Amino acid sequence: MAESEKEAALPPKEAFSDWYNELLWMAEIMDVRYPVKGLYVWYPFGFAIRRNTYNIIREILDKSGHQESLFPLLIPENEFMKEAEHIKGFEDEVYWVTHGGKDPLDIPLALRPTSETAIYPMYKIWVRSHADLPLKLYQIVNTFRYETKHTRPLIRLREITSFKEAHTVHATWEDAEAQVKEAIGLYTEIYLRLAVPVLRSRRPDWDKFPGADYTDALDAVMPDGKTLQIGTVHHLGNNFAKTFDIKYESPDGEQRYAYQTCYGISERSIAATISIHGDDRGLVLPPEIAPVQVVIIPIIFKKGAEEVLAACRDVQDRLRKSGIKVEIDASDLRPGAKYYKWEMKGVPLRLEIGPRDLENNVAVAVRRDTGEKDQISLPDIEKGVILKFEAIQKSLYEKAESELERRIFDCSELEEVKEKIQKGVATIPWCGKRECGLAMGDRVGAGILGVPLTPRGKGKEKCPVCGAETETRVYIARTY
Amino acid sequence: MAESEKEAALPPKEAFSDWYNELLWMAEIMDVRYPVKGLYVWYPFGFAIRRNTYNIIREILDKSGHQESLFPLLIPENEFMKEAEHIKGFEDEVYWVTHGGKDPLDIPLALRPTSETAIYPMYKIWVRSHADLPLKLYQIVNTFRYETKHTRPLIRLREITSFKEAHTVHATWEDAEAQVKEAIGLYTEIYLRLAVPVLRSRRPDWDKFPGADYTDALDAVMPDGKTLQIGTVHHLGNNFAKTFDIKYESPDGEQRYAYQTCYGISERSIAATISIHGDDRGLVLPPEIAPVQVVIIPIIFKKGAEEVLAACRDVQDRLRKSGIKVEIDASDLRPGAKYYKWEMKGVPLRLEIGPRDLENNVAVAVRRDTGEKDQISLPDIEKGVILKFEAIQKSLYEKAESELERRIFDCSELEEVKEKIQKGVATIPWCGKRECGLAMGDRVGAGILGVPLTPRGKGKEKCPVCGAETETRVYIARTY
Repeated sequence: MAESEKEAALPPKEAFSDWYNELLWMAEIMDVRYPVKGLYVWYPFGFAIRRNTYNIIREILDKSGHQESLFPLLIPENEFMKEAEHIKGFEDEVYWVTHGGKDPLDIPLALRPTSETAIYPMYKIWVRSHADLPLKLYQIVNTFRYETKHTRPLIRLREITSFKEAHTVHATWEDAEAQVKEAIGLYTEIYLRLAVPVLRSRRPDWDKFPGADYTDALDAVMPDGKTLQIGTVHHLGNNFAKTFDIKYESPDGEQRYAYQTCYGISERSIAATISIHGDDRGLVLPPEIAPVQVVIIPIIFKKGAEEVLAACRDVQDRLRKSGIKVEIDASDLRPGAKYYKWEMKGVPLRLEIGPRDLENNVAVAVRRDTGEKDQISLPDIEKGVILKFEAIQKSLYEKAESELERRIFDCSELEEVKEKIQKGVATIPWCGKRECGLAMGDRVGAGILGVPLTPRGKGKEKCPVCGAETETRVYIARTY
Repeated sequence: MAESEKEAALPPKEAFSDWYNELLWMAEIMDVRYPVKGLYVWYPFGFAIRRNTYNIIREILDKSGHQESLFPLLIPENEFMKEAEHIKGFEDEVYWVTHGGKDPLDIPLALRPTSETAIYPMYKIWVRSHADLPLKLYQIVNTFRYETKHTRPLIRLREITSFKEAHTVHATWEDAEAQVKEAIGLYTEIYLRLAVPVLRSRRPDWDKFPGADYTDALDAVMPDGKTLQIGTVHHLGNNFAKTFDIKYESPDGEQRYAYQTCYGISERSIAATISIHGDDRGLVLPPEIAPVQVVIIPIIFKKGAEEVLAACRDVQDRLRKSGIKVEIDASDLRPGAKYYKWEMKGVPLRLEIGPRDLENNVAVAVRRDTGEKDQISLPDIEKGVILKFEAIQKSLYEKAESELERRIFDCSELEEVKEKIQKGVATIPWCGKRECGLAMGDRVGAGILGVPLTPRGKGKEKCPVCGAETETRVYIARTY
């Protein structure tokens, strides 16, 4: 698609917002030129990243006993309006279908902003006995929010194209609590595969999911120091079970309300992965989600060109047989232009093969993440490439993790918080009272993200607002 | 989910409509109890069939140079209303989003009934030069039709949950025509993998896609003799290119309108597969799309129970390592109840292993499609199972193909057509004139399906309406 237009340079990553927008276009992830605000188009290359990412998500959910299913997009107004807290949370951002053809519908239909009210009427029918529990389903769907804020591809959307939402049912509050912990673990595992380290915290009560007992969340720290919420897990108590009449027969023959959880992850997972690993030259992709994992560049001189090309094709065949996605760039572009193009697309490993390499029976391997050059012996090329992938994956994660730690600042004064959140995430003691939490937020110009699931307290300290003693520290951050 | 409810017997397949509806429920494919007409819920088991089926579709499209992408669901009214023929074809069945939150939208948004008007504004931007062509993209999405007719799961839906639509762009009318042929070939290949033989024909002009030059289609013949359209391929000429201003620069530097095709396949592919292969005992699935491909039933007596279970687990491990989806049913159900349950779910192969089988170092293999029993030597179990899968696949297709041929009736009188279309598809000479075609349809109470792509003419014959000589025969059928 109009390669020639893409010669302009990428802004430096320091100018994060510009860099992000340009990168999505130059690396062919998303096209923002669709004629409705907040709706974007996945280029095939971007979609291939999505496919690989969601295959990881599916794999991890399937092997932990979740089953994929699919519920309708359209929710009748009367079902949508059943749960009071839930309505309050969503009513301003729901799209309504009011007409079919030229006729008004009898009952307006909501485009799901999330699927509790589509799924739970079915759960009422399906759940009968304690033997049906736990029920652990998920779906990967498009959901809709009428966003009035500034929209941004992959991050703030009117059509969330890739919402993975899981909905589970349990016999007891404690079983549901254990499921919340499992979900946090699974999401952490997913992000480990994307080499994205996460902050995990419990959202303050005023920021929980509408209708939930509590909400735990995963956040990534973006290059500009703002956090991006990239996964949420909600303990729903029996709030929805009461509204939707979801009951089971216990072993002793009693009808009891079920307990529920739900948890979601979206294409923000891809926004975080791209933003954290990318650099001034473009995408840097973890090997597992790279649509092209290896690009082979033949180094051609007049003499021996055929041998070099034949060797490249042989390497390609062998790598493909090992399940590696590999392309040869035998185009007429000069080498520099080839490097530019494949670096922009985040190809983890470049193999260069020329006449001298053939003589030495090696390929030159260049890592996208570090630029490090190395030789791999051709007879062992499959193993050599896989070892490089493992090294890249490990080093991407470690680099991101140390970057994350570098951006967390333990503070004791609100003035300090105010300064540090310009660069990352602050921690500060908090007594746990709502008014103190909200006051802190007001004073520093950012909100409490949550109480870390792995406590970061430093013994007895004082709440900076009321002075009460506390052992709890909370994250405060500017957020997307 | 509430196994106990599912003991009722399936109606015989002869009572096709009842059989179909009950099967979808008893085999846990779709739940029809969602509280909006024409919207259904995929059970996890049904969704696993869908996942396997769409993996085949993706594989075949990807390897033929198609790329998956994703465009928005919501289409602004002004784009949707650009192509006059297209509007006429869809305006009565489009759902309109008119409100976001409590506010009316500036421009109403259509839920895509199909995506020409969402995709082609982007193609206008993307297509620049002959070097960008052909462009071959597809997406797998939910689409919406405000159906006023009788709805039916997987067949006539208000939310088509699984619409695979491809949209291609070419330099010339002839290139687009070649693409239509490629698409017909790819769809035939997809259906071969589902063991579903197809009728392929060119739709009469009055039944083509709104805005197309012509439409070719694939139909399955269902057990009640009605045809089900399970794939359509449209040559769009440059009609949409003119409307959406899609031009390319030719090698000689001229700006020319592009030519386009589009083609679609939906969950009707699954409706046809299930309907054609199923029997009085439930689903019969081609091995490739079966969520469970092998079920192992341990035949347990008091003596030697542990050895039998250990052997079953060993077989399961070995088959899993070969990539086969295999379950052991070691539940307390009596064998008859186990057979009933797994037969209903269409598991292609049942392996029974008891003490005597272990002595003989064999498993008893029972085919779901024929009931045929056979012994497979345990040391060769992987190979034995794969050979059975191949035999099942071949025999499912051959049986379906001979059934299809048996249901095609070459007729020479309209009275005969009227009788034969109660049992299947009739062929009859047709001069090609619109008025004769429509008159035929009126007289027999069914429409012309199309002109077979592989001609079925028998030399010079007479059009039964006007008496004109013709070498063309057309299909006439009752349709879903």
